[in-house]
Amino acid sequence: MNFIDRLNAAIARNYSLLCVGLDPDVAKLPEALRGRPDSIFAFCKAIIDATAGMACAFKPQIAYFAALGAEDQLQMICNYLREQYPHIPLVLDAKRGDIGATAEQYAREAYERYRADAVTVNPYMGFDSVEPYLEWKDRGVIVLCRTSNPGGSDLQFLQVDGKPLYQHVAQLVSQQWNRNGQCGLVVGATFPKEIAEVRAIVGDMPLLVPGIGAQGGDIEATVHAGQTSNGAGMMINSSRAILYAKPQDSEDFAQAAARVARETRDAINRFRNAR
Amino acid sequence: MNFIDRLNAAIARNYSLLCVGLDPDVAKLPEALRGRPDSIFAFCKAIIDATAGMACAFKPQIAYFAALGAEDQLQMICNYLREQYPHIPLVLDAKRGDIGATAEQYAREAYERYRADAVTVNPYMGFDSVEPYLEWKDRGVIVLCRTSNPGGSDLQFLQVDGKPLYQHVAQLVSQQWNRNGQCGLVVGATFPKEIAEVRAIVGDMPLLVPGIGAQGGDIEATVHAGQTSNGAGMMINSSRAILYAKPQDSEDFAQAAARVARETRDAINRFRNAR
Repeated sequence: MNFIDRLNAAIARNYSLLCVGLDPDVAKLPEALRGRPDSIFAFCKAIIDATAGMACAFKPQIAYFAALGAEDQLQMICNYLREQYPHIPLVLDAKRGDIGATAEQYAREAYERYRADAVTVNPYMGFDSVEPYLEWKDRGVIVLCRTSNPGGSDLQFLQVDGKPLYQHVAQLVSQQWNRNGQCGLVVGATFPKEIAEVRAIVGDMPLLVPGIGAQGGDIEATVHAGQTSNGAGMMINSSRAILYAKPQDSEDFAQAAARVARETRDAINRFRNAR
Repeated sequence: MNFIDRLNAAIARNYSLLCVGLDPDVAKLPEALRGRPDSIFAFCKAIIDATAGMACAFKPQIAYFAALGAEDQLQMICNYLREQYPHIPLVLDAKRGDIGATAEQYAREAYERYRADAVTVNPYMGFDSVEPYLEWKDRGVIVLCRTSNPGGSDLQFLQVDGKPLYQHVAQLVSQQWNRNGQCGLVVGATFPKEIAEVRAIVGDMPLLVPGIGAQGGDIEATVHAGQTSNGAGMMINSSRAILYAKPQDSEDFAQAAARVARETRDAINRFRNAR
């Protein structure tokens, strides 16, 4: 089964478009876990177990591990995901971009070392910087298109032939790079109108949409703009709002994460087209 | 001393514009080193010791370590460089690009964990994706501008207001992002005319120039196009041609690397303006 089929199966099984982002900031770990040598793994494992019934994907952000030299704990997390939840796609958020020989190494990092189903990549260096990932035909390649950060417009909104650069990227990917039907695009939730423009260009290609929750994107507008006609085609990511959810009553951090994940999934589902 | 001053001091001290790229491919390691648990470190250490007198910078490519889970050996190499050759800048080739909170983690990875003097970054996500690096004011930030690979033109050559995108990146970096005077640009050697166009935009900003040697760029044209009026302002990178130089006569791999590094440095110097 290829990445797109696995994603669609997970979307259907959990009736969810929610991608749970794993960005473990050691300064924000629960008291009970601090000081343990495997504290990051233990934290992520608890979040994964609490939210696996509500997620269509998990997305670890490699930077949080790299800053600490904690690649071993990222490997433990990825192995745990693959073994306990093989039906939920693992998207490694790495945003790599380099020439072919080097991109081959990064593809091995993502797909072999971390066993990822899909990886995020940067399009600035063009097709041959993405091609080594495409050769892993059963895996997904999710290309940065329109990002949700304030500086996202610096390059992505420059006008090329009367259209912003990010629309050219959407065209390049959907018309040329997606020969094996394994690509997706990153499109931030802060610009629903632009999500709709990308959707119009790329057909049913899946969109990874960061920017709801902590980053402030509007769920209703995001879902309406980005979903496919059958109410799918999106991984709507939430990281901090779930990871660091404030416990209520007698909840612990994992129960709070489960509650927020459920609320977010349900809020998204309210605006989805019927299957 | 900031990064630019340290680079200029190294250029003067070794009378060299040669950057030695450390891209250790385990399949190409010398027989004698294979099988050792620290084979990558041992290989790079031998290359560093052999070429340190001819280099203005060393540039490890993190992907080669990440694919193998060999970050510990990259740390050993960086520590060795910092302790044995503190006068030669260490440029970590990482080409990261992500939103601010994540970019902070990548900046820590490069500057704190690997003690790099400078790091390569990708401009696609705009200013706030680069800002966290700029806050390390004594370090360098080398932004991808025009890359030497075949697909480099896919985005970088799109016309924006009658000029290719890479020239807009050169302008953005030199006029807006370089407030602390710590930026450089990556400009591939396969397009000398374009190096000259970038040089005209950015004043004396240092250019990291991959693409000579194995990638086929022309040294004379590259130096003429990219040097500043005083014959500096460039780190001309060679990786594979030095790392995997064929030994002659009774040379070993490190002696062959030293010979090719010397020849390359001298070939570059032949075309430099007088200081």
